[in-house]
Amino acid sequence: MPRRSPPSGPSIEVLRLGHRPGRDPRLTTHLALAARALGAERLWLHPPDPAIADRLEAVARRWGGRFSVEGCVDWRGMIRRFDGVVVHLTMYGRPLPALLPKLRRARRLLAVVGGAKVPADVYRLAHLNVAVGPQPHSEVAGLALLLYALHGLPGPERWAGAQQRIVPSARGKRVRRAR
Amino acid sequence: MPRRSPPSGPSIEVLRLGHRPGRDPRLTTHLALAARALGAERLWLHPPDPAIADRLEAVARRWGGRFSVEGCVDWRGMIRRFDGVVVHLTMYGRPLPALLPKLRRARRLLAVVGGAKVPADVYRLAHLNVAVGPQPHSEVAGLALLLYALHGLPGPERWAGAQQRIVPSARGKRVRRAR
Repeated sequence: MPRRSPPSGPSIEVLRLGHRPGRDPRLTTHLALAARALGAERLWLHPPDPAIADRLEAVARRWGGRFSVEGCVDWRGMIRRFDGVVVHLTMYGRPLPALLPKLRRARRLLAVVGGAKVPADVYRLAHLNVAVGPQPHSEVAGLALLLYALHGLPGPERWAGAQQRIVPSARGKRVRRAR
Repeated sequence: MPRRSPPSGPSIEVLRLGHRPGRDPRLTTHLALAARALGAERLWLHPPDPAIADRLEAVARRWGGRFSVEGCVDWRGMIRRFDGVVVHLTMYGRPLPALLPKLRRARRLLAVVGGAKVPADVYRLAHLNVAVGPQPHSEVAGLALLLYALHGLPGPERWAGAQQRIVPSARGKRVRRAR
């Protein structure tokens, strides 16, 4: 840990409930950045927030890959119709390690992340309620650990089309332009 | 007298730079929750913010353990005087996997997390600049992955003195009072 792994395992989308447009957007932005950096394909936001979609589109244009943020109005319908395994991340759920083998076998996975005031029926609508740990820990941390457990860190091929990339260095910031 | 075997890996404190008191406190609260849940001993906040310290004290009272949030005014002095390895988390740094063996051997570790506008001299003051990945990814996610890589999830003995604990369940929320 962290390790790179081949892109085996499910393709992952994230559904974020309880976003609050008009409040400080940093928390949802961080959730979106973590989702993208750790290999999710898409973040669905309920309620929709075009400002965050635009911000992440700018990130993807600069740093590569195809991640997008989409609005979701009918989140219950989306969960019901999702063509794969729906995993609700909650500290009240069953421990992740026991469920990992099952999750890794899925073809598609929808990770639902809420926050303190998630509607109670999420627990019933999701196929699995999964805990990264039985302590309050932030949905950003929970999502990061789930994605990492499923996929490891994405390799550089994930970031095709980037305008720039980081050259890892011991001191300071080194960035190389694509051309 | 039998002693507990020493915990493997370093004891970890976190220094959060660039906190903005008065703005939405959720992001720093999430960072603090992730630090606590994943086994850090303490979060230092620059600039100090007693409201967040109080909030985390309430969390620790309820959910156990001894995590605390402390204010830090002279963060450069703290880094210089820290009696252990100072690791600055940045997407521009060297990849974590290569540095993990060294970090695991440390007795004490200070993880410095900034944000987009971290002062440039952090890169020089820290002993190591470490990247969880070369993509923008949120300091909450970065810290969670670093802590997880160093320690895994803390066991239940970490949460001594809790007023309540979660009983993991497939549906809904189950909580057991201590007495």
